[in-house]
Order: sequence, then structure tokens, then C-alpha cells
Amino acid sequence: MATVTLIEYAEASAPVRAVYDDIMATRKTDWVNNFWKALANHPPTLERTWESVKAVMAPGALDPLTKEMLYLAVSATNGCDYCIASHTAGARKAGMTDEMLGELMAVVGMANETNRLADGYQVEIDDMFKSPGTHAQGGGR
Amino acid sequence: MATVTLIEYAEASAPVRAVYDDIMATRKTDWVNNFWKALANHPPTLERTWESVKAVMAPGALDPLTKEMLYLAVSATNGCDYCIASHTAGARKAGMTDEMLGELMAVVGMANETNRLADGYQVEIDDMFKSPGTHAQGGGR
Amino acid sequence: MATVTLIEYAEASAPVRAVYDDIMATRKTDWVNNFWKALANHPPTLERTWESVKAVMAPGALDPLTKEMLYLAVSATNGCDYCIASHTAGARKAGMTDEMLGELMAVVGMANETNRLADGYQVEIDDMFKSPGTHAQGGGR
Amino acid sequence: MATVTLIEYAEASAPVRAVYDDIMATRKTDWVNNFWKALANHPPTLERTWESVKAVMAPGALDPLTKEMLYLAVSATNGCDYCIASHTAGARKAGMTDEMLGELMAVVGMANETNRLADGYQVEIDDMFKSPGTHAQGGGR
Amino acid sequence: MATVTLIEYAEASAPVRAVYDDIMATRKTDWVNNFWKALANHPPTLERTWESVKAVMAPGALDPLTKEMLYLAVSATNGCDYCIASHTAGARKAGMTDEMLGELMAVVGMANETNRLADGYQVEIDDMFKSPGTHAQGGGR
Amino acid sequence: MATVTLIEYAEASAPVRAVYDDIMATRKTDWVNNFWKALANHPPTLERTWESVKAVMAPGALDPLTKEMLYLAVSATNGCDYCIASHTAGARKAGMTDEMLGELMAVVGMANETNRLADGYQVEIDDMFKSPGTHAQGGGR
Repeated sequence: MATVTLIEYAEASAPVRAVYDDIMATRKTDWVNNFWKALANHPPTLERTWESVKAVMAPGALDPLTKEMLYLAVSATNGCDYCIASHTAGARKAGMTDEMLGELMAVVGMANETNRLADGYQVEIDDMFKSPGTHAQGGGR
Repeated sequence: MATVTLIEYAEASAPVRAVYDDIMATRKTDWVNNFWKALANHPPTLERTWESVKAVMAPGALDPLTKEMLYLAVSATNGCDYCIASHTAGARKAGMTDEMLGELMAVVGMANETNRLADGYQVEIDDMFKSPGTHAQGGGR
Repeated sequence: MATVTLIEYAEASAPVRAVYDDIMATRKTDWVNNFWKALANHPPTLERTWESVKAVMAPGALDPLTKEMLYLAVSATNGCDYCIASHTAGARKAGMTDEMLGELMAVVGMANETNRLADGYQVEIDDMFKSPGTHAQGGGR
Repeated sequence: MATVTLIEYAEASAPVRAVYDDIMATRKTDWVNNFWKALANHPPTLERTWESVKAVMAPGALDPLTKEMLYLAVSATNGCDYCIASHTAGARKAGMTDEMLGELMAVVGMANETNRLADGYQVEIDDMFKSPGTHAQGGGR
Repeated sequence: MATVTLIEYAEASAPVRAVYDDIMATRKTDWVNNFWKALANHPPTLERTWESVKAVMAPGALDPLTKEMLYLAVSATNGCDYCIASHTAGARKAGMTDEMLGELMAVVGMANETNRLADGYQVEIDDMFKSPGTHAQGGGR
Repeated sequence: MATVTLIEYAEASAPVRAVYDDIMATRKTDWVNNFWKALANHPPTLERTWESVKAVMAPGALDPLTKEMLYLAVSATNGCDYCIASHTAGARKAGMTDEMLGELMAVVGMANETNRLADGYQVEIDDMFKSPGTHAQGGGR
């Protein structure tokens, strides 16, 4: 149960409604999910967060599906239930198939395993990996 | 400094050398990075981890570049220095441009921010997001 | 559902009751929350944890409200549902307003974002920040 | 060592210099720390992150010192070396004394301990803590 | 609610049933828990993960009870509800008493506290602790 | 580099020296590691943390080696460099062999992998695992 009251459209102030309207227009949906209704308790955070998410998730050098999958990988690593549910839905809407989800989770699982092994043994970074901004020969994990 | 001795090829047992050879052949490189030299202290873990990584990172429904970027997103979220260095190199080798790295990190940053906001307010999962295995209308974050 | 039986006052041993009594007296309440009823399964942990929390959260160079807000910021970062619920209540009781909660969560969100960006790019620490115990000129993030 | 080249003022583009100038003016310093020089590799992230940090950290219902201490508490919980160094400096500049730092870290330590105990025993949230937006009687941890 | 359909034995393909059969035979039980039914949506991950878990958790230099307790300590630290529930049950089945669970959680709690204190103060590693592969005189925490 | 000055025995106050003396006597060593020298900047935290660690790590239902290994498993999961180095040394001193370290890290790696898979798919907890305080038939992961 949320620690703040979820603010519905009907009770929202004009600035909050403007954000809700933009969320629905941008996503081509007719509803707003609970995350934004919680943030609406602090309008500056609602506005700033939505503007940031909209900018970051827009198509660019990476396509929207790849971005949604990256978002899901981070959310699974952090164990954020809400974010896992919403971004699994978001990635599917953007085209993620069951097979892609299976491979995504396999990568997330392995990365979490090897992250802890590398930390657990305190492995030193190879000199070959220390080349900022260059296309270092490499690929280890 | 690693908490175990890094095992070089020259001192490695035959089974460990076989893994090293497969790593170099699979990656088309002539060196093995420190992570594997640390795992070589426990050959069953070396063999199992390499077989898993090789299988998980092979091309499938997701291409190798996408998989490397997912790996990097998880590593940045966990703050694993070794893994960030090695997978930034790996993703670049697989074709990640500076612009793609910039967008990847922007997504990782936003996901970590909104993960904590969703948790911090204990936001309830919307019913619209509760549809296992279906292509739920959605896309919230 | 807890993995241990919650121990109610009526079934508690004398040493456990003594801790419960001190919790209620210190907090000026007539109930004990579930966290302590779970710890009561291991009395040494119950006693030690309560003594530590009581000492750490007492007024000092930082006032109780600031301490409760710091506790909530950590709990949100760790995604601990129980702790978020209990410390949001605790901070409100200590005087946290809705506006303060909104700003607190905004800081928590930004900190989590920039923590991952700093780690994700493996940014070196500036020399200006390396001055233990001194009032370094600074303020970066 | 950073995985991207740190962009110095002399080599920066006009839009990046504009952000650097605003950072120095806002903070009343004559230098820019490495974090921003790394973000400058992706100007949209530099601009968006700086605007967000500037807005979030400005005085409001919470004063700048409290905000810096919350930032430090999150950074210590995430184990982000860069952020711990920079925000310890930032908090000291904002007025944090050695005694306050000691109490802050004591709270961070206890919160991390009890977060794991509450999760580790899967403690159910008390009904008393389930009252969004109200000033629940409470204060448990 | 899981984001994928849990695959029951009756609807499972032959390769998935083979894994389920091995799980039940290895554990001497007549049921399969939900974790595997979720992984069954991606058979390569089901097979690889089960083979890895079976190998890692088999008796070796460490006995099964110690391994289950280590698994539980990690799961509590990550706040994974499912894993805490299943490995608390698993450790109890392997012989963990209530007293042992109490001491385990006490260690997990203290480790999480001192981990953050060591990180929070950025404590340098003592030279005495830098001796890979040797039995360094030590024991600090 | 630590963000506080490490306090050496020669400069320490009498109460701090008393803790240092007890650390050396308890551990049968003639030196104190940096962690405690950092905590000494806030004597109440030094005293409380040492008393807690001494109590928690004393032999009980779990032997000291098992406790050190649990501490190391948590530290590796949190990626705390200092704690990994000090507790690897501590566990070795308590009798951990190279083979045991290899198996410990294998368990830590797998637990981190399956923790994220269970979270990533939002797997529901089986009813069989919901029996607080009883020796539930189980053992899943």
C-alpha cells in the first residue's frame, strides 16, 4: 500500500493534469499508471521525472525496445517489483517476445553472478581494459 | 589486489588450459583476462561459469551487442568496477558507439532513480500490469 | 508472511518483555511493532538491536527528525518494504511534512541516479575531494 | 580510470561550457569536478542531470545541509566511492561537523542492519503503518 | 504475480519434464516449486540453472547445511522474498535449528552494517590483508 | 583514501585505547586494523560496533568459521572491497581452505543469479514455504 495518496485525474491540480495529459498523449493510452499518481504528491518531482523519462526513452542511437529492455534489466537487478511489472509490460508492448525475455533474464542472471565473483575475488582490472574512449581489444567478463 | 593467485597459462593444469584455449578461440583473441585466471583456482567454477557465459552470450533472439549492453547495465547498477571495465570494452568491440554508451547510461541512471521512487513510495502494481504471458497494454514506468 | 513466529507480549519470556516494555516507554506508545516480535525469537539479537537503535536514534548533533529521514533514505535505497513503511510513519511522527517527504524522495532518486552514472563511467575521484578530516573546498556530486 | 575521456573546459563545446559555467557560478567555485567532465561526453545527459541536481538540491522544505547528508547516506548505502568522497566534501562545506558525520554514519549502519533483518525474517507490515498520507501513530523500525 | 505463466508438469514438454523429474529425484520430493515453473518458459535457462544449482549445492568441502545458510545470507542481503522463503525452508530441512537461524541473521545484520561503515568512511585496505593465496595473519572486519 | 583521519593508538584517548586493547586481546594479535581506526573518530560508534561484533562472532550454535564465511558471503554480495579483503583473511585464519573458498564463492555467485531470476520473473512464493517456525518440507531455490 502506497505511503502517499494516489492522486486521480479528477482531483488533480491543473499542472498535474497537464503532465497526465502529456503522458497519455505520448504513450497513446487513455490511462495513467500508479507511479505517476504517487509522484503527483510533489509536483516538481512529477514534472521533472516525466520530462526526464520522456527524453531518455525517446528513440535515438538506441531504439525504444532496447531501452525498455535495459530498463527491465536494471529493475530486475534492483528487485523493484513495481518497475519489473511495468517495464515487462512496456517492453512487450515495444515488441519483446517471450524468447527475448528469456534471453534477457538469462543475461541478467549471469551478470549478477559474475559481478559478485569478480568482486568476491577482488580481481584487478586488466590493462587491456583501461583505454577510455578507444575501441579496446577486449570483451572479457 | 585479488584475494587469490591469478593462474597464468604456463602454470595451469590441462583442464584449466582447455578452458583458456576455448575462451581465446571463441573470442578470437590471444589472451585471457584476469577474471578467468582468478576462477581457475576452483576449476569446477571456471568450467561451469565459462560454459554458461558462452551459452548465454551467443547470438539468439537478442544479438551480441544488445546482450553486452544489458550486461553493462547490470554491472553499472551493481557498481562492479571490473565488470564495468570489461563489458564496456566488450560492448565497444561488439559495435557500441559513444552515442549508444551515452544513451545506455542515461537509461541506467533513470531506471535507478525511478526504481527507488517506486519503492520509496511503496506504489501498488496496477491491475493492467498483472497479465502473465500476455501482451498487456502498458508501458508505464 | 514471516519465516518465524511473531512473539506476542502474552507469550514472551521475562527478558523479552523487559525489552518490549522499554520500547513502549521510550516511544511513549502502548504497542510493539512486528519487527521486534520477529527478533524476539533470538533474545540476544532483540536486546542488542534495540539497545543500538535506541542509542543511535537519540537526539545528539543531529535531531530525531533528521535521523528518521536518513533512515528512510537508506530504506528506500535498499527497497526494504517493511522499513519504508515503518520509517515513513516514524518520520511523520517526528515532524516530517508532505513537502519534506517529497524533497527527501527527490534527493534519494537523484542520488541513486548519479551514483550509477559515477560508477558506470568509472569516474576518478578528484584530488580536491581527498582530504580526510578537513573542510575541503568542494561540493561536487 | 574512467571509461570515457574527461572533457576539459578548453576542449569543450559551447553548450558544454555553458553548463560548466553554471555549475561554477551556482557553487561559487572556479573548478568543475570529474563527474561532470565524464557526463560531458553525452551533452543531453550532462544538461538534464545538472538541471535536475540544481533543482533538487536547492533550499526548500529541507535545507541544503540536510539534503547533502541524505545524498551521502544513499551513496554510502550504494557503496559509490566517487559519490561518497564528493558528498562528504559537499556536506562538510554545507556545515556538517565531525560529530554530525559520526552520527550520520551510525544511522546508515543501523538502517542497513535492520533493513536486512526485516527482509531476512520477512516481517509483515503492521496495520498501524498502513495509512497513506496520514500522520500515523508509529515510529517503529 | 509472476510475469510469465508458470508451467505445470501436465503441460510441460518432454525436456522440461526431464528436468522436473531430476529435481524431484535429487531432492526426494514429489513436487516442483514455482521458481522452476517460471524458468521453464525458457528451457535452456531452466536446464542450465538446474544443472548449476545441483552441482554447486552438492556436498563437497562444505556440507549442504552450510551451503544453504550461505544461500540464505545472500538472499537476505539482496532482499529477495522468494529466495528467503525457499532457502529458509531448505536450510531447516538440512538441519538448521531456530538458534542457528538467529545467529545467522545476526551475522547478516552486522555484516551489512559494517559493510556500509567501511564503504561510508572509504577505509583503505590494510597491507596485512593483501596476501593472495596465503594464510594472512588477520581477522579484522 | 579514508574521508576521516585514521586514529593511531599513540594519539587515541583512553576510552578508544581500551577498545583497541580489547580488540587485540580478543583476537590474540598485536595490531588493530584500519576499520576500527576510522570508527574511532566517533567513540560511541566504535564501542557499540565492537561490542556487537564481538558478541555476534563468538562461538555459539554456529562455529566461528561458519560465521566468518557468512560474513564474507554478505560482503561479496555488497561489493565491499575492504570487508572482502578483511573477512577473506579472517575466514582463512579460522580454517577456510582454498577449496572451501572456491565452493563459497560458487554458492554466492549462484545465489545472486537465482535471486535476480526469481525477482525478475516476480515468482509467487509457494504455499509449502509459508510455515513460520516449522520445519517445512521444502528446499527449493
